[in-house]
Amino acid sequence: MARPVTFLSDYGLADEFVGVVHAVIARACPAARVIDLTHGIPRHDVVAGALALERALPYTPPGVHLAVVDPGVGGRRRAIAVRTAAEDRLLVGPDNGLLTPAAERFGGVTEAVEISRSPWRLEPVSATFHGRDVFAPVAARLAAGEPLAGAGAPLDPAELITLDRSSARFEEDGTIVAHAVATDGYGNVLLDLPHEALAAAPAWLRLGRPVRLEAGGRAAQAVYGRTFADVGRGELLVYEDATRALAVALNTGDAAATLGVAPGDELRLTAP
Amino acid sequence: MARPVTFLSDYGLADEFVGVVHAVIARACPAARVIDLTHGIPRHDVVAGALALERALPYTPPGVHLAVVDPGVGGRRRAIAVRTAAEDRLLVGPDNGLLTPAAERFGGVTEAVEISRSPWRLEPVSATFHGRDVFAPVAARLAAGEPLAGAGAPLDPAELITLDRSSARFEEDGTIVAHAVATDGYGNVLLDLPHEALAAAPAWLRLGRPVRLEAGGRAAQAVYGRTFADVGRGELLVYEDATRALAVALNTGDAAATLGVAPGDELRLTAP
Amino acid sequence: MARPVTFLSDYGLADEFVGVVHAVIARACPAARVIDLTHGIPRHDVVAGALALERALPYTPPGVHLAVVDPGVGGRRRAIAVRTAAEDRLLVGPDNGLLTPAAERFGGVTEAVEISRSPWRLEPVSATFHGRDVFAPVAARLAAGEPLAGAGAPLDPAELITLDRSSARFEEDGTIVAHAVATDGYGNVLLDLPHEALAAAPAWLRLGRPVRLEAGGRAAQAVYGRTFADVGRGELLVYEDATRALAVALNTGDAAATLGVAPGDELRLTAP
Repeated sequence: MARPVTFLSDYGLADEFVGVVHAVIARACPAARVIDLTHGIPRHDVVAGALALERALPYTPPGVHLAVVDPGVGGRRRAIAVRTAAEDRLLVGPDNGLLTPAAERFGGVTEAVEISRSPWRLEPVSATFHGRDVFAPVAARLAAGEPLAGAGAPLDPAELITLDRSSARFEEDGTIVAHAVATDGYGNVLLDLPHEALAAAPAWLRLGRPVRLEAGGRAAQAVYGRTFADVGRGELLVYEDATRALAVALNTGDAAATLGVAPGDELRLTAP
Repeated sequence: MARPVTFLSDYGLADEFVGVVHAVIARACPAARVIDLTHGIPRHDVVAGALALERALPYTPPGVHLAVVDPGVGGRRRAIAVRTAAEDRLLVGPDNGLLTPAAERFGGVTEAVEISRSPWRLEPVSATFHGRDVFAPVAARLAAGEPLAGAGAPLDPAELITLDRSSARFEEDGTIVAHAVATDGYGNVLLDLPHEALAAAPAWLRLGRPVRLEAGGRAAQAVYGRTFADVGRGELLVYEDATRALAVALNTGDAAATLGVAPGDELRLTAP
Repeated sequence: MARPVTFLSDYGLADEFVGVVHAVIARACPAARVIDLTHGIPRHDVVAGALALERALPYTPPGVHLAVVDPGVGGRRRAIAVRTAAEDRLLVGPDNGLLTPAAERFGGVTEAVEISRSPWRLEPVSATFHGRDVFAPVAARLAAGEPLAGAGAPLDPAELITLDRSSARFEEDGTIVAHAVATDGYGNVLLDLPHEALAAAPAWLRLGRPVRLEAGGRAAQAVYGRTFADVGRGELLVYEDATRALAVALNTGDAAATLGVAPGDELRLTAP
């Protein structure tokens, strides 16, 4: 019984790249089931990929988790496979911070291996498609039950690249200074303020009460609610989204476009 | 042996939503095979989703059929799982009409269950992602063979929401008044005139004969044919499409753009 | 144990077409695993589909390879299933050249069958969706182990349509005249100059040396390198891509847009 493999990338679906990675895995481990998490990560956006992986992983079966958002492919960045403390999950991808938020959700990394010259790689290794030549064959062999140590050379987990990521702060005057970390296909804006941090939020932030939003010089009024039904059509909603982090939505509309915010932008939330 | 699961939604593929639903199903029922029908239904377009599901379902293996186009998520709409009279198919999704045309293809609904508070749901249930928290775990448990009655509270099938949908009519002067129900990726326009209704069409509609099309004040000439090869490049074709409903295509072009029609628009067909 | 099926098309993912093909295969051969290579081939672009299939196939497990880019559907083009000399691969699709480059990679075709009226087809066969009605059921039955000869009427492999494709040439003055055969989602431009032909390239083409590119009246300077890291951000790179053919990339940019080239366009490479 092979372990399930999940796969996330910025490859998009216009080309055969995703299909070829599936094919390589199927050759090396025919019994492995591969679950595509998404291949719509914006090109080379390591932070967006890392956060999507972190959001998705708790819902996936423990197994092998392949992720490729790799602007440094062919350069000096390391390629890695790591084991998490909890649930014995194995993450495979470039060592550029992509894997670390997800690994931290499972207690961090207890074992790491450098796989650029893995004995399992496909030769000749291309300079530009390590998903096919390095990451997929390693993920497949791990799914088949081969030991992590066989994937390459041991690496000190303390040397792994971590991700620079923002986090919201609460100012003394009660302003919440948050940042957009992602926008989804509906135009909802995810902020860097997780459920756990909301316990310390200013007292003015109460369900059913208005919230003033400022972003890039624009201001707008929203309501802090539980769900879309708590505001009228075309009204802005501040809410805990499905990841339990604070988010902004526009009922039957596109909040990101309306507010003019993109990932990385600052949003200030105040009592009106 | 698990039952196969089909999955249709308006989630798109840019985010990890579809992948997370697959992951939840794989955790709850590792043996279930999941077939994606499409995730490209226009956002919140319940009618488009219902019609795509109705078109696809006769080609799918009997099993569990998960569909999520759910503008009312988090509001008062019911979440349901239903059994069809024929082939013992199980459909899971919001109670907003999305499932009813497909269920009618299989003799209608013989058993219905309200699943918003299903014992199989993932807690905490988010306000916005019932695909992950309610529909996927229910679909997975049904695929694993658990009884429908275990999914939630019994519901009278007569109380289910049905879909408002148009149908073409034949006027006394011989005009066929039809409506665009969908346009596909090629720009073909599907009309609300199924094969069965064509038997009563006016006598002027004959294979090989011209058809005058009027839509939104524009008029164009087409030919009633069997296939694209029956008209020249750049010419309009009226034909029975792969669903055996009447449709309009432009040979090697985009009929919807050329005629300026979108789903819901009226088209009038007359003898020239 | 069913043979794996790969599936490539120009159907896109906006509609249920791809899902319905999967469904038909799952009904006829529930044990077959289906690997999507891509469905993002530009509509009706047989050459692009043929080259993507040729690039992907060596990485796939031997099995049944379904490909549908079929502008002539419903007309007089043949529908075929063929066996390759090497690895006993079975390719299924329209007889318009789509399958031939991939088949040639495996020693060419040793057995061919015309399947338009296959006993395995779904009746009534639509005029426009042979992927569902002809190709998918044939692929599924072949995956299940039925003999190729049972799929339809024998056909002389010499009668199969081959693909018109360009190839780069070396002029006497040292100019390399190549053509764009594809651009990928990153904007990289693939040329019709494979690794094997590079052995005869003019001596001025050396790793680390500059290359002058001309396309459509525009000229630009590039470097012949091994990987993106060999040039600075925003600089053009000529390199052997992951298929080992010559390609042009722009480090962290879109070479196709910058050079203004599309598939079919000529590019001239000279020493500066």
